[in-house]
Amino acid sequence: MAQRHPDPTDPGPRTTGPVADPRPGTVGPLADPRPASAGSPADPRPGTAGSAPTGDTLAGYLRAQATEFLRALRLHRETGSGANGSEGSAEAARALRRSARRISAGLHTFQPLLDSDWCEAMRPELAWVSGTLAMEHACTARLERLLAALHRLSGSTAFPVRPGLPAGPHLGGRAAGVVPAPAGPPARSTTAAPERGNLTVGAAKAGALLDRQLTLARTRAHSTALQALGSSRFHAVADKVAVLASEVPLTGTAATTDLRLLAAAAEDRLTAAVTALPLVTAGNPYNAAALVHGLSPDTVAHPQDAPWHQVRLLLRLHRYARETAGGPRGDTVVDLRLLAAGQALNLHRDASEAAAAAAHAARTPRIAPATAYALGVLHADQRHEVEAARFAFQQAWQKETVGAS
Amino acid sequence: MAQRHPDPTDPGPRTTGPVADPRPGTVGPLADPRPASAGSPADPRPGTAGSAPTGDTLAGYLRAQATEFLRALRLHRETGSGANGSEGSAEAARALRRSARRISAGLHTFQPLLDSDWCEAMRPELAWVSGTLAMEHACTARLERLLAALHRLSGSTAFPVRPGLPAGPHLGGRAAGVVPAPAGPPARSTTAAPERGNLTVGAAKAGALLDRQLTLARTRAHSTALQALGSSRFHAVADKVAVLASEVPLTGTAATTDLRLLAAAAEDRLTAAVTALPLVTAGNPYNAAALVHGLSPDTVAHPQDAPWHQVRLLLRLHRYARETAGGPRGDTVVDLRLLAAGQALNLHRDASEAAAAAAHAARTPRIAPATAYALGVLHADQRHEVEAARFAFQQAWQKETVGAS
Repeated sequence: MAQRHPDPTDPGPRTTGPVADPRPGTVGPLADPRPASAGSPADPRPGTAGSAPTGDTLAGYLRAQATEFLRALRLHRETGSGANGSEGSAEAARALRRSARRISAGLHTFQPLLDSDWCEAMRPELAWVSGTLAMEHACTARLERLLAALHRLSGSTAFPVRPGLPAGPHLGGRAAGVVPAPAGPPARSTTAAPERGNLTVGAAKAGALLDRQLTLARTRAHSTALQALGSSRFHAVADKVAVLASEVPLTGTAATTDLRLLAAAAEDRLTAAVTALPLVTAGNPYNAAALVHGLSPDTVAHPQDAPWHQVRLLLRLHRYARETAGGPRGDTVVDLRLLAAGQALNLHRDASEAAAAAAHAARTPRIAPATAYALGVLHADQRHEVEAARFAFQQAWQKETVGAS
Repeated sequence: MAQRHPDPTDPGPRTTGPVADPRPGTVGPLADPRPASAGSPADPRPGTAGSAPTGDTLAGYLRAQATEFLRALRLHRETGSGANGSEGSAEAARALRRSARRISAGLHTFQPLLDSDWCEAMRPELAWVSGTLAMEHACTARLERLLAALHRLSGSTAFPVRPGLPAGPHLGGRAAGVVPAPAGPPARSTTAAPERGNLTVGAAKAGALLDRQLTLARTRAHSTALQALGSSRFHAVADKVAVLASEVPLTGTAATTDLRLLAAAAEDRLTAAVTALPLVTAGNPYNAAALVHGLSPDTVAHPQDAPWHQVRLLLRLHRYARETAGGPRGDTVVDLRLLAAGQALNLHRDASEAAAAAAHAARTPRIAPATAYALGVLHADQRHEVEAARFAFQQAWQKETVGAS
């Protein structure tokens, strides 16, 4: 389905595209000139105290994440990953992605402290692992979100979506069983179409279409992930992570380089990207900005979403950098606000992709007008969730700025 | 198209339905027990001073409105109302409706001061006049709103809607020329379909469908209004209004009855109806309440809109009562806020009816899926405008409550 957005932690081809790196004049995320000043003992942020975190702290963090990666991998193999995949296997896949993302982010943000060739070889591989493992979960979550929205839009209370339903054969999803299976718990609905609750004809057909398309996409993602986990490429990554768990390839100056300088640079990149967002509009409720171009020829890709997706990734890098280097005083408050801002951006991404999936489904040949109508309502509904998420981010960010000043 | 909502100033059949009168235990808008206390010299509101407005004030107000009605009627006949109808004719129709609404409201709110039989005979006739004259304008405004939304949703800037376009043959509309006529100003668009700007296929087809349906409805409304204005029923109303312009049938106690008591009762009815609205939800942006049931079997009538429509009418009665009896100190501030609240509720009504028109059009047999999809997006967009209008009303009302305390 919709392709995931470029990850700034993935050095990939060294392009300077606006999504890969929104800052003008730089030649890629690794080329930021500021890290060259790393090693300065000056404290870049007020309110910090104690000995500065350096290469040792970074090494400890990376070793811990590598260990977590290996633990999750072992757990994943033990819990099975095929058609008998269990909730434990999904949990293991999530843990794998989590640690892969953190190692990759550490390599990105603190690159000057690490062996350069090793970093450049490692990071695309970690991005491939977490990206491949994320696809199935994304399909599951998208279907879940769209069916829940269809139920809400139909005013249906007969079939509330239950995220706690038994999970199906998937690697990373939470609930494959959104559409209650015949063997599932007895339905409260008394309509003639119990498998869809009391959705109207158009909504039911739209739901069935999305179910078919996203289940197919999920099945493909599942196969792809299984193949990836069994590939020699993955085994090479796992071997490298196993080495990392005991031995971090630090540079000679790492022991005297203050991590907080590099963490501050990551924060600056985030702040710069946020500053470029249309936050005044976003903070004005019902600005109707997210649905503009909702009927433009290319409804699947909303270019206006890209800067927000980029901020989501930069915010995550900032959060992980804080995890590694420690933040200034008032950590908990800042962390909670970062979390709220990050959750808003996750919602933004999810709603954006769900809206694209609805638009995509509407292009299926020979669908009934009622189906297309329901998909149009659904698309607009999800674009409004996009707008709502921007509002929520603006609110969280505003608090953050006030709190951090 | 969608039927206008019951007018509480129209006594009609004396039912106690929730829309006609939201208060339990009353038997119709004319049966409020409080007016029985009219005539008491006690000032019902703090902060007022000077001699109390009584029957004389009401008589002056009604005479002035009746004179205005006759002036507008004369103007309407002079400017023509057929296929050569001009902007002047539309303006005259608006003035006719405006005065008819005010006379009707005066008869409703201050009924205890007026001859009861005369009131009961007069009010349904005035409601019929303003209702009949309003239909054509409503169709025009609805089409205008929907086409503007389609352009916005298509990200089209090539054909901004220009409300100042020359008006077509209509009685009460502002701009029949939303879809630029071939002889209009040169278009900035260079696409092959200049008559629709750069709308996409689905949006263009949806626009054409709505154009057909609402233009037909407008033409019918135009004919109906013309027939009405030429009917003996209308001439009887005009004759009665002509009598009213010189002679208001006051009761014996009118000279000593304080209008402000009756105006306060009108305000109390408004306040009670507002209190019953889900204002906490409305004040929480992006609550997604207005689109719930957007795909339910009966999408045309949104029962959740009815209390808001009712408040719109009660707010208007309150405003007119203030015009007649005068308000407490701080009038201008209160008036501006009432105006803002009323405008929000007008938007609410317009968006609600436009959403219903989009849903209605989507039921046209044999439309293309792309058309249906665009109508679905449009419906959802207008339902979000409904939600936005509720938010705007909540904000205006909150200010009002703070300001008036």
